[in-house]
Amino acid sequence: MIKHVEKDPYYAVIFTAKFSKDLKGYDKIAEEMLAVAKEQKGFISLESVKEGDKEITVSYWRTLEDIRTWSVNERHAEAKKGGKEKWYDYFTVRICKVEREYSFGENEK
Amino acid sequence: MIKHVEKDPYYAVIFTAKFSKDLKGYDKIAEEMLAVAKEQKGFISLESVKEGDKEITVSYWRTLEDIRTWSVNERHAEAKKGGKEKWYDYFTVRICKVEREYSFGENEK
Repeated sequence: MIKHVEKDPYYAVIFTAKFSKDLKGYDKIAEEMLAVAKEQKGFISLESVKEGDKEITVSYWRTLEDIRTWSVNERHAEAKKGGKEKWYDYFTVRICKVEREYSFGENEK
Repeated sequence: MIKHVEKDPYYAVIFTAKFSKDLKGYDKIAEEMLAVAKEQKGFISLESVKEGDKEITVSYWRTLEDIRTWSVNERHAEAKKGGKEKWYDYFTVRICKVEREYSFGENEK
């Protein structure tokens, strides 16, 4: 079954990254950031997959303003500092407007 | 170093999925699909990460028309049939306009 989902407009933040070899402290902060993100205004959901030294994390937000507010959140800013200084060799952040979507099967989430 | 990248408009297709337990034939078709996608008009790049039963694949395209053309490509349609019948319990496809992006570090790609 294919479901065509009609929704209010929303945005995706696509984070694609390559880890460095220094992951000390990463898991704890990643977990904390997810918990803090979930409390933010406009947060919808987050999906994250890691394989070897690659990570793709996509978070979904109601508005561009919500994304901007989260990007300057104090704890988030600290975590990003750790990301640049230690955990990532490189990353790219793309802020996107979701234009259309469809799903197959039942997502139990 | 943070680079703010200015580019022509382009689009991202975010594919998030949960694998079923029947992955017979998946690797071969996934590899073939990447090779065929790379030949398509408007294809920019593709990033794919798998972890346990989760997959996130993001492909980037010049225009919505390029995405539409690829979505009805004959070999792609066959692969999608396999995806629904065998390899995935569920998936979601989101077609997005990239509004803004920035990068940290040097991506050797």
